[in-house]
Amino acid sequence: MARPLVVGVDLGGTKVATAAAGCDAAIVSRVTRPTEPERGVDAVVATIIESVEEAVAEAGATLDDVAGVGVGSPGPLNPEIGVVTFAPNLKWHDVPLGALMRQALGVPTYIENDANLAALGEARYGAGRGSKNMIYITVSTGIGGGLIFDGEIYSGSSFVAGEIGHMTIADEDEGPRCGCGNYGCLESLASGPAIARMARELIRHGEETMIVDLVQGNIELVTSEVVGRAALAGDAAAIAILGKAADYLGIGIANLVNILNPDTIVIGGGVSRVGEILLEPVREVVAERALKPAFEAVRIVQAELGPDAGVVGAVCLVLSKLKTRECRTGARS
Amino acid sequence: MARPLVVGVDLGGTKVATAAAGCDAAIVSRVTRPTEPERGVDAVVATIIESVEEAVAEAGATLDDVAGVGVGSPGPLNPEIGVVTFAPNLKWHDVPLGALMRQALGVPTYIENDANLAALGEARYGAGRGSKNMIYITVSTGIGGGLIFDGEIYSGSSFVAGEIGHMTIADEDEGPRCGCGNYGCLESLASGPAIARMARELIRHGEETMIVDLVQGNIELVTSEVVGRAALAGDAAAIAILGKAADYLGIGIANLVNILNPDTIVIGGGVSRVGEILLEPVREVVAERALKPAFEAVRIVQAELGPDAGVVGAVCLVLSKLKTRECRTGARS
Repeated sequence: MARPLVVGVDLGGTKVATAAAGCDAAIVSRVTRPTEPERGVDAVVATIIESVEEAVAEAGATLDDVAGVGVGSPGPLNPEIGVVTFAPNLKWHDVPLGALMRQALGVPTYIENDANLAALGEARYGAGRGSKNMIYITVSTGIGGGLIFDGEIYSGSSFVAGEIGHMTIADEDEGPRCGCGNYGCLESLASGPAIARMARELIRHGEETMIVDLVQGNIELVTSEVVGRAALAGDAAAIAILGKAADYLGIGIANLVNILNPDTIVIGGGVSRVGEILLEPVREVVAERALKPAFEAVRIVQAELGPDAGVVGAVCLVLSKLKTRECRTGARS
Repeated sequence: MARPLVVGVDLGGTKVATAAAGCDAAIVSRVTRPTEPERGVDAVVATIIESVEEAVAEAGATLDDVAGVGVGSPGPLNPEIGVVTFAPNLKWHDVPLGALMRQALGVPTYIENDANLAALGEARYGAGRGSKNMIYITVSTGIGGGLIFDGEIYSGSSFVAGEIGHMTIADEDEGPRCGCGNYGCLESLASGPAIARMARELIRHGEETMIVDLVQGNIELVTSEVVGRAALAGDAAAIAILGKAADYLGIGIANLVNILNPDTIVIGGGVSRVGEILLEPVREVVAERALKPAFEAVRIVQAELGPDAGVVGAVCLVLSKLKTRECRTGARS
């Protein structure tokens, strides 16, 4: 059978994750390589291209069998012309990634924002299966998002929609100044670093918590991941800190529910790994604050695909774009 | 020519505005009647039906010439089954308006939320002409909105999207409790009543302002309309009050710009009639707060259709739904 494979690439600041999948988005081979952005644009592009070739070879196929390649990249980018406009982590400016890959591989290549692809992956094969209007929120070092309306990525008028983290939800006196320059951004109040900051403040105020032991007394080592571990072990202070983050997240999500009336909110990213300790108080805040008919229409769930969301989304992007019959009839989407 | 007319109805709490239009949405006749909701559901429905018949007759046509009727109603409602779920101003619960009108008139009838139709009207024939992703914000007694994505109404998963006024943008100590039960809602901080409240507070604090003269010393008579008149006459206090409302509106709009990356924001409703006195500071706040690539993609403009937005939107709704060739070839949209 000709062209039965699609390849998804998740280009991150530290690693390039690549997977070859069938037309049902089931992954058949994986390749992970370090990104090493310090080696320059050409080297990173070569790494991506080699990863695709390797993943295809590992799947027992050749490039002739590949119907398309999808790449999720950080940063503002233009999916229509395949150019990564700006990716600070990679030190990329105006890199025509789509054209470079098409040239090297001879295969249709589509690029898209990484958060949008994680959203698409969760919508099609993750926690958002069956959803029509879904909002994906990633809570980690930053807070970002991807919007799926009517089953497809909504990327806005200049492809930068979904900046959920820079929603003002509080006054200037709440939390530190955000990286964007404002005060009161959701990201400055509920992201991983915000959770770590709240924990350090509590510890400095003499609060007794297991977190201190987990970092062997060095509170500079406190991260949201450590707070999460303590909370999962039942530590009251850690649970309270996550509750405070959930308050802020709940306010932001209630805003999104009121404005966009989604059927599903999927929460991913490192911080979400604590699961119900975070999600339950989030749901309570949203129930309390969102308008009733909008709240009744939405479920708020934890992401399911974890670190795979990006590559699965990249595969889904290709499946969405493909007109080739062999892949369309095979695709579950 | 058969069926060359479409009819739009804007059902409000005080009046029913009806217009017959050609397939280019140009209005050829108008009828306005009092709603009189106290006379009961049947009487109001009869008023709507008679208004449609009258508008068609005034256009020199008969119902046979009507391709479709669109009705904008206060919501929540279900446009798919044509039922107004709940309209507090009308005291309506589960009124099958679409079916009742289709039965009486023998013409395809479509119903939609009034704010969504005002948005559609502005997008097609008003300040949003040429836009793809537009947000309509009405600032009057409340703050509401309508979302146009890819040129069409986005109404969400249970048809209640666009509740922009109930976006939390500030802490609990800012402004009074909102009608929705929360604190810090955009509506409680920047709506007409919020502007009137700020004016009354300033006057009570001894601020010198023309507003006092305009209400002949009775500060209970202060409304946002009076504040607007004073501001247009150059009154410094009134301009400052509108500037404060613009600060809040700007924060809410910056949030929308970051989340949805629209190309156009159209501001309508009574409060917007002051024009640039409000819009200029709004734009400044958005420029300062929104992320640069999203801000650069958006223009923020005053609504153009005024009280006609609803009927024009209702006409556009019909034109969108119609498959009839005679209307599609004639429609500018």
